Amino acid sequence: MKLFIKMMYDGTRYAGYQVQNNALTIQEVLNKALFDLFGFDCDLTGCSRTDAGVHALCFCATVQKSGEPSLDTNIPCERIPYALNYRLPDDISVYFAKWVDDNFHARYSVQRKTYEYHILNSPFKDPFCVNKAYQFPKVLDDYAIARMQAAADNLCGRYDYSSFMASGSSVKYTVRNVFECKVIKTGERIVIRITADGFLYNMVRIISGTLLEVGKGNIEPKQIITIIESKNRRLAGPTLPAHGLYLTDVKY
Amino acid sequence: MKLFIKMMYDGTRYAGYQVQNNALTIQEVLNKALFDLFGFDCDLTGCSRTDAGVHALCFCATVQKSGEPSLDTNIPCERIPYALNYRLPDDISVYFAKWVDDNFHARYSVQRKTYEYHILNSPFKDPFCVNKAYQFPKVLDDYAIARMQAAADNLCGRYDYSSFMASGSSVKYTVRNVFECKVIKTGERIVIRITADGFLYNMVRIISGTLLEVGKGNIEPKQIITIIESKNRRLAGPTLPAHGLYLTDVKY
Repeated sequence: MKLFIKMMYDGTRYAGYQVQNNALTIQEVLNKALFDLFGFDCDLTGCSRTDAGVHALCFCATVQKSGEPSLDTNIPCERIPYALNYRLPDDISVYFAKWVDDNFHARYSVQRKTYEYHILNSPFKDPFCVNKAYQFPKVLDDYAIARMQAAADNLCGRYDYSSFMASGSSVKYTVRNVFECKVIKTGERIVIRITADGFLYNMVRIISGTLLEVGKGNIEPKQIITIIESKNRRLAGPTLPAHGLYLTDVKY
Repeated sequence: MKLFIKMMYDGTRYAGYQVQNNALTIQEVLNKALFDLFGFDCDLTGCSRTDAGVHALCFCATVQKSGEPSLDTNIPCERIPYALNYRLPDDISVYFAKWVDDNFHARYSVQRKTYEYHILNSPFKDPFCVNKAYQFPKVLDDYAIARMQAAADNLCGRYDYSSFMASGSSVKYTVRNVFECKVIKTGERIVIRITADGFLYNMVRIISGTLLEVGKGNIEPKQIITIIESKNRRLAGPTLPAHGLYLTDVKY
């Protein structure tokens, strides 16, 4: 059996999830905590590769003994989150653990993932949103939010989303199923929530940048269809910064 | 005319609002920004003296030219928040400014203030609550929250609250009007919201510690009346840490 864990992290200090040379990553810090707890090296498989500065409320990963298909330990499963948290810094928290079959794959077994992009829609900075939301100073009214939702509705479906993929990405198969895209304004916060069976590189940040252009009046909601059909990254909006992005749910 | 401003701050880095020797305070940082903007020293009067680590969503203050009853400037009032924010660090934000009469006093003219105490009620740490909420790991159920609300209701009224004042405080007049005390649980967060015409030293943190003891079953809701009547700090609960406390509203 492999160990399956769920965790939250504040990505501000990290160069993303995936291990890198010469940069601190979530995976490296987690690997050290796992070694400290179990006394041997572990292999981690994550549900995705979040970028530098991106946050997670629900990041899923599996743990095996390095080079082996499973993990053996006498530590009761329900104690493992506490034992790991004791060994992890404040900005990473493991809150769930269970045993899964060796053939379970943290990335390939994913059915759908949800990301949220958080926008602080205020002319004034917010001390509690530093590195936690992207500030857009011009306040968007109900009409602008309704336009953004109409555009978001046009984004849903099964399409080739290469217009919403960072140029230079090497991914060949660019068709995805976007199940839901909601634009929710609560007070000074706009949340763009997107659920899909998979995402292209920077897809949520480019979709959010495009929806914001719709809110600003620079793109019409119906143009979303043309942008998708064009398969041309330059027709979509800008890539919003990483620090507004949260991985919020993963379904297997 | 004096300048009246409203601001938010994350108190984590600061030794409280009030200027101190050898410790960084909100007032000191704000004074520097004011000098940089206006080109002369200013006197600041704050609505209260928040402690080290305490946060504010609505801290009110007035600004006068140092040693004078008012402030003269050609900068339009509505531009002042932007001009100050440009000169302030990310953890302090001024979001409102208006002119008030010279006889207006930021502290003595207050009619009521609202504080919130934020508790992360989860066995797992939350990377997004570091220094922003007090963690209480044992999950309190609806019955416990209802008990806390019953105790909170017993706290409201016009009483001598010296049982809920830090020992050693030099304040002589200890009668206050507590208008409202609400205990709200949303997901893993418990918020204790208290509105009064004034607060004794550490009053909200001691009330919150007392209500948490009620939630844990160590104090009965009806005992609150006895605790108030005793005027004995030792009968109330512990003082919860500063980092869960927010000044959220001030009414003049």
